[in-house]
Amino acid sequence: MTILLYDLAGADPAVRFSPNCWRVRMALLHKALDFETVPWRFTDKEAIAFSGQGAVPVIQDGAKVVHDSLAIAQHLEQAYGDEPTLFGGPAGEALTTFVRHWTLSILHPGVSKLILLDLFDALDERDKPYFRETREARFGAPLEQVADPSASSLEAFRGSLQPLRNTLREQPFLGGQSPLFPDYIVFGAFQWARAVSPLELLDADDPVYAWRERLLDSHDGAARQAPVHRPQRMTS
Amino acid sequence: MTILLYDLAGADPAVRFSPNCWRVRMALLHKALDFETVPWRFTDKEAIAFSGQGAVPVIQDGAKVVHDSLAIAQHLEQAYGDEPTLFGGPAGEALTTFVRHWTLSILHPGVSKLILLDLFDALDERDKPYFRETREARFGAPLEQVADPSASSLEAFRGSLQPLRNTLREQPFLGGQSPLFPDYIVFGAFQWARAVSPLELLDADDPVYAWRERLLDSHDGAARQAPVHRPQRMTS
Repeated sequence: MTILLYDLAGADPAVRFSPNCWRVRMALLHKALDFETVPWRFTDKEAIAFSGQGAVPVIQDGAKVVHDSLAIAQHLEQAYGDEPTLFGGPAGEALTTFVRHWTLSILHPGVSKLILLDLFDALDERDKPYFRETREARFGAPLEQVADPSASSLEAFRGSLQPLRNTLREQPFLGGQSPLFPDYIVFGAFQWARAVSPLELLDADDPVYAWRERLLDSHDGAARQAPVHRPQRMTS
Repeated sequence: MTILLYDLAGADPAVRFSPNCWRVRMALLHKALDFETVPWRFTDKEAIAFSGQGAVPVIQDGAKVVHDSLAIAQHLEQAYGDEPTLFGGPAGEALTTFVRHWTLSILHPGVSKLILLDLFDALDERDKPYFRETREARFGAPLEQVADPSASSLEAFRGSLQPLRNTLREQPFLGGQSPLFPDYIVFGAFQWARAVSPLELLDADDPVYAWRERLLDSHDGAARQAPVHRPQRMTS
C-alpha cells in the first residue's frame, strides 16, 4: 500500500523545503517504499488534524499514522525489515541521537540564519503571517534582524561544520560506506537551503560538498531533481 | 597475558591525565582485560621507540604493539570478542568517527583553554620545557595567553556541550543503555581535567554531570579513584 507523506510546501506546491520532511523522504527512498507526498502548508492544521499534530512530517501507512521524523524512521525500520537498514542496530540508533542533537543545536540555527529571508520568500502567502509571528516570537526579534547571509556569517557557518567535515574526510558517509538515517538528518538541513536559497553554503573542495553530491545523486537523483524556489526580491 | 599500556604521567607518576590514554584505559576495563600501566613522560621517547611512535597511548599485547587510541580500541574489539562490545557493530563504529571529531574540534580545545595552566603545573619538571615549546608553537602564543579559566570562558564551554547534553537527556549513555567507546572518547576529556584541575567544568544539575558520575562509578570506580594533582601555584 502506498504510504502518504504530508510534506511542507511553498507557494509553489512542488517546492518542498522542510528539513524534517526531507529526512523522511530520504528514509522512504532508502527503504525503496512506495509513497506519495501530500503538499501541506503551516496553516493547513485541519488537513493533519487526524494525526493529533499541528506540524509535519506525518505519514499515513495503511491504518498507522506516525509523526516526528525520528519516530517515522523507527517505524519504517521496524515495519520494513532490517535491509537496507536505517540505523544499523541499537548502537547505530543510539549514536544517531548525538548527530540529531548536533544538527538541531548547531546546523539548523546556522542554516536558518543564512536562508531565513529566502525561506520566507518561498512561503505561500497564507503562511507568511503565521511564519513571521511564530518565528519572531521564538527569536525575540524581527526576521530581518535574525537573518544574516553575510560573508562572515557564512564563514562562521562553514567553521561550525568541522566535526562533520573531518568525519567525511575519513569515510564517505556518517553511516560508513553507505548512508544511514543520521546522514539524512544532516542532509535535510542542506536540502532545506537548496530548496529556497541561491546561497552556496559549501566550498566545492569541502568534503561536505562531495558528501552532499553523493546524497543528491542517491536514489536516482531524487533530491537533486526536486524543484527549487529562487527569490525574486530586491537585494540591497 | 597482561597487556601493557604506556600511559602519560605527571610529576607524580600516579597522576595520569592524557585524554587519549583514558579512552584506552576505559576500553580495557570495559573488556575486563588484565592490564598494567607503565608511566611515561613526553620526553621518554626512547621508552616507546619500539612502537615506532613518539607519543602514547601505546599498548603491548603479547607480540602485538598498537598505537593510537582508536586503533587500540579496534584491536581490542577484534581480538577479544564482541561482548561486551566497544562499538556495537559497523554502524556504531562509523558513527563513532563523528563523536571523535566533535571531541577533537570542540571539546578538547574547550577543556584545554580552561585547564592549561593546571595541566602545565602537573607535569614532570623534565617535560615542562618540551610541553611549553611544542604547545606554544602549535598555539602561536604563550601558554599564559591561551589559558583562560574565566567565568565567561567556562560559560562558553558549557554552552558548547549542548549536543551532548541534549543527547544525555534522552538516554543514559551516548551508546544507549550502556557505554560504548564513544562514551569513553568524550569521558577522556573530562578525566583529563579532573586529573589536574580543581575547576568544576559542569553544573551539578547538568545531564552531562550525571553521565560523568555514571562513568566515574563504572568498572568499580576505577576513574573516580585515580589520583589527581591539585596545583599549588599562586593564583592572581
